[in-house]
Amino acid sequence: MTHRKGPRIQAVHVTPIAVTDPPLLNAAGLHAPYALRTIVELVTDDHISGISEIPGNRDIDLALAASADLLIGRDVFDLNALQQALEARFGIESTAQRGEKPWDQRKLVHIYSALEVAYMDIIGKVTGRPVVDLLGGRLRDRVPFSAYLFYKYEGAGGPLAFGTDPTATGWAAARQAAALDPPGIVAQAQAMCAKFGFQSIKLKGGVFEPRQEVDAMFALHKAFGPEVPLRIDPNALWNVETAIRFGREMEPILEYLEDPVRGQEAMARVRQAIRTPLATNMCTTSFEDIPGSIRLGSEDIILSDHHFWGGLRASMKLAGICETFGRRLSMHSNSHLGISLAAMVHLGAALPQLPFALDTHYPWQSDEVIVGGRFRFEEGSVEVPQEPGLGVELDREALARLHRNYLACGLTKRDDEIEMQKVQPGWTFQSVRW
Amino acid sequence: MTHRKGPRIQAVHVTPIAVTDPPLLNAAGLHAPYALRTIVELVTDDHISGISEIPGNRDIDLALAASADLLIGRDVFDLNALQQALEARFGIESTAQRGEKPWDQRKLVHIYSALEVAYMDIIGKVTGRPVVDLLGGRLRDRVPFSAYLFYKYEGAGGPLAFGTDPTATGWAAARQAAALDPPGIVAQAQAMCAKFGFQSIKLKGGVFEPRQEVDAMFALHKAFGPEVPLRIDPNALWNVETAIRFGREMEPILEYLEDPVRGQEAMARVRQAIRTPLATNMCTTSFEDIPGSIRLGSEDIILSDHHFWGGLRASMKLAGICETFGRRLSMHSNSHLGISLAAMVHLGAALPQLPFALDTHYPWQSDEVIVGGRFRFEEGSVEVPQEPGLGVELDREALARLHRNYLACGLTKRDDEIEMQKVQPGWTFQSVRW
Repeated sequence: MTHRKGPRIQAVHVTPIAVTDPPLLNAAGLHAPYALRTIVELVTDDHISGISEIPGNRDIDLALAASADLLIGRDVFDLNALQQALEARFGIESTAQRGEKPWDQRKLVHIYSALEVAYMDIIGKVTGRPVVDLLGGRLRDRVPFSAYLFYKYEGAGGPLAFGTDPTATGWAAARQAAALDPPGIVAQAQAMCAKFGFQSIKLKGGVFEPRQEVDAMFALHKAFGPEVPLRIDPNALWNVETAIRFGREMEPILEYLEDPVRGQEAMARVRQAIRTPLATNMCTTSFEDIPGSIRLGSEDIILSDHHFWGGLRASMKLAGICETFGRRLSMHSNSHLGISLAAMVHLGAALPQLPFALDTHYPWQSDEVIVGGRFRFEEGSVEVPQEPGLGVELDREALARLHRNYLACGLTKRDDEIEMQKVQPGWTFQSVRW
Repeated sequence: MTHRKGPRIQAVHVTPIAVTDPPLLNAAGLHAPYALRTIVELVTDDHISGISEIPGNRDIDLALAASADLLIGRDVFDLNALQQALEARFGIESTAQRGEKPWDQRKLVHIYSALEVAYMDIIGKVTGRPVVDLLGGRLRDRVPFSAYLFYKYEGAGGPLAFGTDPTATGWAAARQAAALDPPGIVAQAQAMCAKFGFQSIKLKGGVFEPRQEVDAMFALHKAFGPEVPLRIDPNALWNVETAIRFGREMEPILEYLEDPVRGQEAMARVRQAIRTPLATNMCTTSFEDIPGSIRLGSEDIILSDHHFWGGLRASMKLAGICETFGRRLSMHSNSHLGISLAAMVHLGAALPQLPFALDTHYPWQSDEVIVGGRFRFEEGSVEVPQEPGLGVELDREALARLHRNYLACGLTKRDDEIEMQKVQPGWTFQSVRW
């Protein structure tokens, strides 16, 4: 390839961090007191810094750090070539490697996502444009998010673990309160919506037997009225019969039903049987899964995640596929900080269609790693940054502190099953439970 | 939407031109002595010029000029919003509006292509990067093209019409020679390959009865040997039985068979029956056609065309769809000059996979509208421009001259049937002929 001028990557910094995370329950167990994230910073030969954030996982961190030789000296616009170099190094993982847990720890997509977002941050700074403009330009100035409710034990996570701060009020108090039944869920929703202004609500299900969770949805419907769209996500723990029975019962109150059952074929059967649209971030999670999804008709809505689909440009590609095949696109989330949120917001502002408020765990986190502190939500939405690049800068003091948390907490990857066993000895993950 | 700073479109220039075109034969008739192209120039408030070239058509030119109000004052990065504004103005055309002729005169895709490429030229100049870098960066420094053979009457087109210049030698002589049988086609191929170095060969068929055209393919195979990939494009004029019979006969010598039959269902039947891959730019010509193509399995290779698919970014989206569904992508062409060629080359350099040499009519044209004259081919390939934007500049004197050609020639759209009737009175287009 011909030599060209342009900013080139000179340094790669991979910093694992641990952020306080409350004891949230889900199909795979319990959140640890800390959620792991990895912060990537690329620095060019002319001292421009680009940053990104991905789910934390030691194996991925090591592979990222070991990829530095593929990056150093590379022109920041050479994203296509970078992707091919990474594919050659790591191989394209098949969907089978994703596993059955609600989250995804595949290596290549995470590495490419981490690097691509940091590259886009640099390209934005070099060109003087926000990242959304590198995706074709903004179609909206604010991006709406949904309340994301969790069954949870009492506790704030972090150093407090299951302890609480009795002086907390409002959302800070609700964030540490237990929520283990429909009234608890409604109280959590009310506190979260009061604080963030969310106008739609999702419940992470797959924790209790379906009757209880469905009752919680009806309690939310009763508390918030028909104008607030509701969603529930049993994380594929229901069988087809259960999904059809409760899916039909919830038809009058649900905006969409997320991953009631496991696998594209089971999803397609449920989809034939109920009128509520089905969404997924579990049965169609990579481009490899798309042909099967289209052939079977396994879902109406794909919940993308730029961390799992290989970055922002890959997410735009997914949006094009969804548009072409009459699917709708929204966004999945994991516990995350403001760098990931900024990337989600830039992407959300560029998507041709944004039919649903996006998922975010952000209210459950209290730490932040960007200058200026945490993003503000107004009426449930976040303003698209106007500054060049992602529009967020690393708070290096916070980064150092959160990295110390990482070293101290001893966690190296997410494993909610082990956390759950600490509370309920002998508890095991089941891929289909009810 | 928030007001932001950035170069904004201040002027829109739409200039129809007519370029000399030889009397090439095809399924729809005969090329006129001039091929129409339209040159679009957008100028920003800080005097940056972006250019593009599309097939000429008076209705599209008028619609483009009438779109100026949607452009003036618009930030050059706002491509997503521009596309939505154009869709709102013109409506999304259905594939049915494409018609049965081998080319495409749909309005919205051409307008969006014209504007998007000119925008990309400006964005490239603003950011100091070649257009390929706005598509993720170059994966190759040269883009390979195929020889594109035509049955033709004697004549050079343009003012000479069916006349010839007896002093011409080499390709200039072959370009004006008749080619109406296998030996004529082989001689044309030899002259074209000697001049441009092409390493694969395509014959535009659908002109004579299949036996003669298939014989021409075997004559090419004999003349060039097995190392030169061959393709034939009957432009959907064969019926299924004919396509299977001759398709099987050509299996040992074809790289791919392009549009032997009309429509996705017929293509799928042929595809089941022969081993040679099928390519199309006629049965799957828009994103609307993709679901049917995937469901039926109508082709192996989509011959994209950024003029017909709505620009370069849309072509990258198409590439993503092809990759996802195991289709391959290559490129279709019409008579064109260097601005279109530059755009094709930037796109070709960014495509993750480029399994086939691309189509181009460029050797058949002798005019040019860019500074420095015509692109040079070496070993059949074109170097990807390194300059910011498309890397080509308008030759304003040539533009004025070619615009005078347009005014003088009296053509307002392509109609090969009328041209053919001038030579063969009563000749009519048939959508399936043999």
